[in-house]
Formats: sequence, structure tokens, C-alpha cells
Amino acid sequence: MFPRSSSRSFPVQAFKNRLLRPASSPSIALQVIGRKPISTAANRAIGRTQTRTALDSSVSTAIPSIAFSGSRLASLAKHFSSTSATLDSNKMPPVELQRYDYIVLGGGSGGSGSGRRAAGWYGAKTLIVESGRSGGTCVNVGCVPKKMTWNFASINETLHVAEHYGYTIPKDVNINYRHFKDIRDATIKRLNGAYERNWNREGIDLVHGRARFVEPKVLEVENNDGTKMRYTAPKILIATGGRPKLPNVKGAEYGITSDGFFEIEELPPKIAVVGAGYIAVELAGVLGAVGVDTHMFIRGDNFLRKFDPMIQKTMTERYEAMGITIHKAHPGFKEVQLVQDGKGKDKLLKLISEDGSEIEVNEVLWAIGRSPEVEDLDLDIPGVKLNKAGFVDVDGYQNTSVEGIYALGDVTGHAELTPVAIAAGRQLGNRLFGAAELKDSKLSYENIPTVVFSHPEVGTIGLTEPEARERFGDDQIKVYHTRFTAMYYDVMPSEEKKKNPTEFKLICAGPEEKVVGLHILGLGVGEMLQGFGVAVKMGATKRDFDSCVAIHPTSAEELVTLR
Amino acid sequence: MFPRSSSRSFPVQAFKNRLLRPASSPSIALQVIGRKPISTAANRAIGRTQTRTALDSSVSTAIPSIAFSGSRLASLAKHFSSTSATLDSNKMPPVELQRYDYIVLGGGSGGSGSGRRAAGWYGAKTLIVESGRSGGTCVNVGCVPKKMTWNFASINETLHVAEHYGYTIPKDVNINYRHFKDIRDATIKRLNGAYERNWNREGIDLVHGRARFVEPKVLEVENNDGTKMRYTAPKILIATGGRPKLPNVKGAEYGITSDGFFEIEELPPKIAVVGAGYIAVELAGVLGAVGVDTHMFIRGDNFLRKFDPMIQKTMTERYEAMGITIHKAHPGFKEVQLVQDGKGKDKLLKLISEDGSEIEVNEVLWAIGRSPEVEDLDLDIPGVKLNKAGFVDVDGYQNTSVEGIYALGDVTGHAELTPVAIAAGRQLGNRLFGAAELKDSKLSYENIPTVVFSHPEVGTIGLTEPEARERFGDDQIKVYHTRFTAMYYDVMPSEEKKKNPTEFKLICAGPEEKVVGLHILGLGVGEMLQGFGVAVKMGATKRDFDSCVAIHPTSAEELVTLR
Repeated sequence: MFPRSSSRSFPVQAFKNRLLRPASSPSIALQVIGRKPISTAANRAIGRTQTRTALDSSVSTAIPSIAFSGSRLASLAKHFSSTSATLDSNKMPPVELQRYDYIVLGGGSGGSGSGRRAAGWYGAKTLIVESGRSGGTCVNVGCVPKKMTWNFASINETLHVAEHYGYTIPKDVNINYRHFKDIRDATIKRLNGAYERNWNREGIDLVHGRARFVEPKVLEVENNDGTKMRYTAPKILIATGGRPKLPNVKGAEYGITSDGFFEIEELPPKIAVVGAGYIAVELAGVLGAVGVDTHMFIRGDNFLRKFDPMIQKTMTERYEAMGITIHKAHPGFKEVQLVQDGKGKDKLLKLISEDGSEIEVNEVLWAIGRSPEVEDLDLDIPGVKLNKAGFVDVDGYQNTSVEGIYALGDVTGHAELTPVAIAAGRQLGNRLFGAAELKDSKLSYENIPTVVFSHPEVGTIGLTEPEARERFGDDQIKVYHTRFTAMYYDVMPSEEKKKNPTEFKLICAGPEEKVVGLHILGLGVGEMLQGFGVAVKMGATKRDFDSCVAIHPTSAEELVTLR
Repeated sequence: MFPRSSSRSFPVQAFKNRLLRPASSPSIALQVIGRKPISTAANRAIGRTQTRTALDSSVSTAIPSIAFSGSRLASLAKHFSSTSATLDSNKMPPVELQRYDYIVLGGGSGGSGSGRRAAGWYGAKTLIVESGRSGGTCVNVGCVPKKMTWNFASINETLHVAEHYGYTIPKDVNINYRHFKDIRDATIKRLNGAYERNWNREGIDLVHGRARFVEPKVLEVENNDGTKMRYTAPKILIATGGRPKLPNVKGAEYGITSDGFFEIEELPPKIAVVGAGYIAVELAGVLGAVGVDTHMFIRGDNFLRKFDPMIQKTMTERYEAMGITIHKAHPGFKEVQLVQDGKGKDKLLKLISEDGSEIEVNEVLWAIGRSPEVEDLDLDIPGVKLNKAGFVDVDGYQNTSVEGIYALGDVTGHAELTPVAIAAGRQLGNRLFGAAELKDSKLSYENIPTVVFSHPEVGTIGLTEPEARERFGDDQIKVYHTRFTAMYYDVMPSEEKKKNPTEFKLICAGPEEKVVGLHILGLGVGEMLQGFGVAVKMGATKRDFDSCVAIHPTSAEELVTLR
């Protein structure tokens, strides 16, 4: 189907000894950058198919831009995508098809994780194709700006508590959101660059553009400048991620999604947030916390419906207590009208519900789910199958229905979390390019800890209580529960204290009381969960929890003293 | 030596089934309180030596004050200490000696933990003797006010960061320390009451006063009102804790210790903190964080000398970066002169060092160590031995040198931490009064996690790197280390960011890379450590850490992705 051997494609020696070249070691990377340029052609002429190491690989791909460009460290990505082509067209006979060991579609968490493992650890000649900004959803419109905004909003919560601690804080503290957004944007830009520097350091080529299959293992990429290139590899990874959905509502496009949320330069005084998932809850939370008149519209009575009932109930109550209006059992919207175009307070929308009721807001944020980014890929050409929900169908090893084509991360719809995509990507890299003993590497999707950056944070591992009862039977399940006010709020009047609960639930199964579910909410639980995640993954029982001496005074200690 | 049997001392039935009466269940406790009073004499007359349960025990000791006082819920402790005596002297022939199953000297964390386990779970007739405020060091002059003050000070740190997030915070925010102190005092008072209510609920008698041995198993207590009572029990626990040391320096008494720190009503503008242990570091930290001109005097170059070198170095640098002046290699002081008596800024002290140098400050805080509280106990009467440092000598089961006399908590000098004392106390309660299978109960002092509430917090489990190398040999030790700036500080200028490091060190031993030491510092590590504590106690390896999917974006995730 496509040429397996070529003078530009050579067998890659599996590179096992991490210590010789840790992928993230800056000192070694600097050595590479500082090495005397050796022409790639010369390097290839040595024909070191068996002795080639990752270090060599890094040099061999890094050299062209050193040889052909004086300002190598500037715009590396651009250099790679253009100089390779230039090199080929100027110095050699025209090559329509560039060959790699591994092509990764999407330079987000999963693609980057897998590409870096393949190239950095095992010396695979790797190409990443990225149509947007490097780093994908997480860096640009997900985890990073979300958490930064959560930090930003948490400050306002602290200001409210501060007065109870004796600090004289003026009521009219001005919040310059634009200032914060500029800093957030700059941080993201820095991270975009860090991703690209890491790829370069590990000898990964990068092209910016949209890829589509033109043959089962051949991709055509339209660069941002309109030129086209073709690439092939025996192993191709689809890690294109997803994007937020817009609802099928007339005028929906007058609103924004989470992507648009991160473009807002001026906070709207009043906003409608539509959705009950964690993205809706996180974004409504930060808006509410900084004083935006926030209205959530949910189909049921509680949000976070995939979480344990304790989380659903307490967090919904908590959001109401903090002043967010929750429109429950909402029938959905049938139309959005643009009353006035503008930014922030100057934008005005009228939302008309299915039941005819109306509300005027300055913005509507749709947070109703995400779709996989597959449309433009022409997946029918290789024949990659999608599941009913439209996500790429994969097995436990990230194999798609086509041999040599893999998928992971949000495009598969499994545990759509950055570290899951990274971990799955690394395991896939190990499996495809690592030593023999790694041939069965895969990510376990059991007991993945996750945190929602709501107000307060929510953490969860394993089964909800209903899931646990369903799986093990009521008589096999023992639930430990506590609810208290963190000491931090002890200075507040009791009415205020009640609004700030910390609540933990530990679900244990069987006579040995193995921990099968852990659900926590409250101040500080974001940093609290990871260690318990390690313990639960190790198979912790209630007795293991209790065997650890408490750390006093913390909230976390309540998890090892539950009765 | 003392009468083992008496009509007032009866065998106690081990009470194994916790579910019938969880010690902390308010509903059951209310039932007890609401029960129709039965005279204690009548109850005793039943002679239920075999069928007595914890519930009965609770009632039998709770009745006197119901029977003899209309306002039972007020001043329970007082009722217990006085009405018991009244009951005995008015209604019965004078009894010089009250008999218990278990006498606990000290109503702090350890004594309370042990007494509650003995009385609440196993129905032992228990007396607690407390010379100060109920709850001991932790509640009154330790963990609780310390952590509250840490929270108070952290707010000021947030205000500093807030401006970088776009909040317009005035430079001259007024801090009303007195307001905060009043709230802190009220919280402590509430906790004093909570301790006493818990004891009452579990049928524990309480006398306020100082105890001393007058016979090997007989204690005389001088009540606060000057009256004296004698008590005996076959099992006596010394859990009297400790107190801060004053140095042997002329005029040292013009300064304060940590006890005095919690009495300050007005912050001194300039303070000297003498000492390099965690108490010095915690208190200097809060003072520095709220803008007090803080001078630390330490003998060496770094403080926290018992911690891993990474902690010592980074935290000392961090304190200097936050504006605390650290006088290193200080020769010690030879004299303190009271220049001006007063409070806050009006108090003026001159400190004269051994090398003759002088410094004027508004307060000096001695944090040079703590002494066990043993002097007034007349321990020579039973013959309880002290170790060289003056602490009560105990074995791994909390046995002193005298059969039937036990000790735990700060008075033993082992791991002077509240949860350690509680856990040791509960285990001792299990061993002394629990069922046969608990006869070997003891606390394991291995891998106890602990947090220093410095700025930022420090967490530690297990061995320091030098300890690990010493124990296992260099070739058996692998150390993982990372240092980064938490995302929270990403908004700050790079110079400021550097001042706020997060740093983790994981020490692994042997080919399986078992975790033998974990040392962390940075924003949020206080709540981060507990779960890792569970994992380490379970015997976690590096691989176990790595097997848990990271939680992004957190600082904690760096602990499961270390290279």
C-alpha cells in the first residue's frame, strides 16, 4: 500500500536506557544544541541502523535548521515545517512524501506525551501535526486557563473571609479582569513555546496545519500558509481531541462555549451557563465567585450528575448558598436573540425557553458537552471506525479498527482528562517503540483520581455509592461519611460557616473493607486527593487508611479517622 | 500495696462491638442524657459485674450530677469534680479514697484519647485529672491556635498576590489582631467545652487540679479551690505533656515562650525569635507574613535541622526572601534588659549576645525546646524512671518502669505530635481494657507523616536523605527531586516567583525502590501529605506512585510523575 523501505526511513533501535538521556534533562539538551553541526546527509551516510540512539536521532532531525538557518532558536516549529521541505526541494530531488516512524495527529496532551515517549526514549522519527496552538485543549482552552481563573476567583473568596480575620478590606475592591486575562494569555503563550521546545529537544518534527488521510497511511497537511505536504508512517496516532458542542437552538451562535469563555476580555455582569457537567460547574463557579450574576440552567435538580449523590447534592446547595441562581428542571432553550451587540455589559441577549419563559443576560455560555475532532480527517479512507457517540473506537491498547492506526485522549471519549491522555500516550509509545517486555503496555483506566475545580473543589476516585451497591450488593458495602467546617472558616459567623462545608465519603467493599470509592469536597481537596489515589490504586483497605497517623490540624486527617 | 478489690471497684466487661455504641455518636449520647436518672447507689447495688456495658458505665458516672444538680449541662467538669466529693461526704461514710479502673493524668490529646477509648469503648471507670484547660497543649497553646494564626497570616500573603491578579488592594490594609485573637480565644473555649462534653458523654469523671503521687498507686489532687482528694486505680496513665523551656539567660523572663505568644493582644512591631525548631519557624513565619519585623536567631546556618537538608536550605532561603532577618551562627544571648514595660510597640527589650552585640526589639520569643511536665508528680514515690533528657522512660507499649503505670505523648519525648499521642492513647486503651486479641496493641512509630505550618508549609514522612544513606548505603538509595513554581504564582513577576518555590524529594531504597522518605514544601502541601502517608505506610514503591494517574493541574501530581 505504501513503500515500507526507503533511504530516508531506517529501522530504529529501541532505546531502553533512560539514564543515558532523560527526556527532560536540560543539560543534555543543551549539549545537543551546542554540538558541532553534522550534516544530516553525512549522518545518514554512516548507515548506523543498529547503533543509532535517541541522542543521534535528536541531532539528525535538529541539524537541518542549524545548517540552513542562523536564528535556529527562533520559531523552531516554523523552521521544521518549512526547512525540511526546503531542504528536500533545494538539495535533493523533489520528494512528495516525507517518511516517519510515527505520525501524531494533534499536539495536545496525549499526542505530545506519546510522541515524546516515542522519540525521546526510543528514538523513533516522529512528526506531530497540530492545526491550532501547541499543547491542545489543556494548555489553551482547558486545564491551564481554567485553573488560573480558579486561582483568580479564589482570591475574591479570600477577601470575603479576610474581614472576619480582622482585615479591613474595602467593599469596592476593583477587579481588573483584563489585566488577569493578559497575564493568563502570556502564560499560555509561554507554555506553547515550552511544548515546542520540548519536541525540538527530543528531535520531533512539527508542522502546523490540518491533516487528512489521502491514502490509508498517507496524510496530507495543508499548512497555515496554504502549501500542502504529504507524510507517511507505519504507525499513526489520532490524538486530535475534541471541541465544545453548540446546541441545536436558533441563535445559539450568539453565545459562547468554554473556548469563547477564555477570550472574554470584560466580565459580563449577568451570565447564563447552560449545562450540568463539570465544565459548566467550574466556569459558573469562577463567575459566581467574582460577583457575576450567574444563572445556571440544568435539566435535573442537581448538577454533576455523574458524581456521587453526596457531591451532587452538597455542591448544588453550596452554589445556591454562594449566590448562583440555579434554574432546575429547566426544559431547555428554543431561541437566543441578540438584543444588543457589544462586549461585557454592552452585550445583551434574550434567552427564550421551551416553556416560553424569557431571561435577559449579557452572555450565554453553552457547556453541554464536547464532540470529537474527527470531521476533517477523512477517516473513511483508512477505514477507522467510530462508535455510536461519534468517538474513535479503540480497545484497551488504544488500537483503532485499522492496524497501525491508534487513537487516545478526548477523541476516544474515554476519561477525557489530560493526565489520562498523557499516560495512555506514553504507554502506547512504550508498546509501539519500547523493548520486548513493554509490548503489552497499556493504561489502566481503573481508579483514576480526578478533581473538579469548583468552589470548593471536588475530588473523586472509583465508584459512586450507587455504582458500588450495584456492583457488590448492599450487604457488601460499608460507607463512612463525615461533614464538617474546615478550621479556616472558624472565624466566620455560624450562618456563613454552614455555607462552606467540607464533606468526605469513603466507600468500602467486602469483609476486608477495600476502598472502592472516595468522594471529597471542600477547601484544599484539590491537593489532597493525589496521595489517596496512590493508596487506592495500591488496593488500600479502611484499615490501611486508619493505620496512618493523622496530620493535625488538617482537613485531610479526617480521612484517616473516619468512623 | 493498695486494695485491689472493693465494692466500688468492679471488673469491667470488655466492650467489643463498636457499632452498638460509637463513641462519637451524638444520637446515642443524647439518649443517655435523656434517660431517667437512676441513683448510682441503686445501680451499684445491682452488682452487674459481668453484664456492665459501656452504656451503663456512661450512665452510672453521669447520674450523680443529674441527681444533685438541676443545671446539669452547665459546667459539667466542675460538677464532676465537686459533686462526687459532695456525694461521698454527705450521703455515705467519708471516703478518703476514690477508686477507678483507670486514672489519666492530663486531659490533653493523649490522655483524652486513651481515657475515651478505655471508658467509651470498654466501659472502664475512668478519671481524668487536668491542672489547666481541657484539651491540653494542642487545643490551648499548640496546634489549634497555631493553625488559626497560620490561616490569619496566610490571608496577608494572599493580599500581596491579589494585586498581581488584578485586584486593587490598598497598601494600608488595617489588620485588627485583637479582633482575630478574640475569635481565636472563643474557638478554643468552645473546644475546651467540647472535650469536656465528650468525656461526660463517655462517662469519664474530670477533676481540675494538680495531681501528685502520695503512694505508689494513690494520687492526691489539690483542686483549684484548695480542697484535696485522693484517687487510686490499678492502671494509671501519665499524659501530662510538656511546657516550653526558658533559657538560662539573665532577664529571660522578660520575654515570652509559645505559651505567651498566644496571649499577645497587640503585635509587636519588631520581634526576636530564638530557636531553630519547628515552633520557632512556625511562629516567626506568621509574624513575618503579617509584616512584623522578625529576627530569627539560630546557632547554625539553617533552621529545621532535624529535617531533610533540602527543607533546611530552601526554607531558610525562603524566610530570608520574605523579609525575615536570620542571624546565623549566633552565639546565644547573655542578657535581656527591660528598657520599657508595656504592650506591643510600647514594650522595649535590649538583647545582649554572648559576643557583646546588642539589638533592641519589642518582644523576644524563646522557642528553644520543651520540657516534660513531671516535676510536681512525685514520680519517685511509685519509682517511675526518667531518661537522661528528663522524659518519662517508656517501652514500645507505653509501659513505664513501674507495672500499671504508663506514659505517652509529649511527657515521653517521642514524636511530640497530637495525633501520635491520640493514637498511642487509643492503642493503650485497647491493650489495657480491650478484648484478648488486642493485648498486643501498640502504636507503630514508623513513617509518621507530619506537617510544619511554616510559610509555605513543609511535609515530611520517614527518613531524611542522610538517614536513608546511612541506613541503606549510598548504592541502595535513589533520590527523585523536583523544584518548580506553583501555578498560583504564575501571575507574579519572575523575581517574585522565585521566592515561592515548591520542592519535592522522594527517597527510595533497594532495587524495588521502596519509598523510605518523602519531603515536600510549597503551597498546599499541608493537605497533600496525608494520602501519601497512607501509601507509604502501605509500603509504596516508586512504581506505585507512578501507577496513579496524575491530577492536573495540581502541585501534588508532580509526586507521581517524578523522574
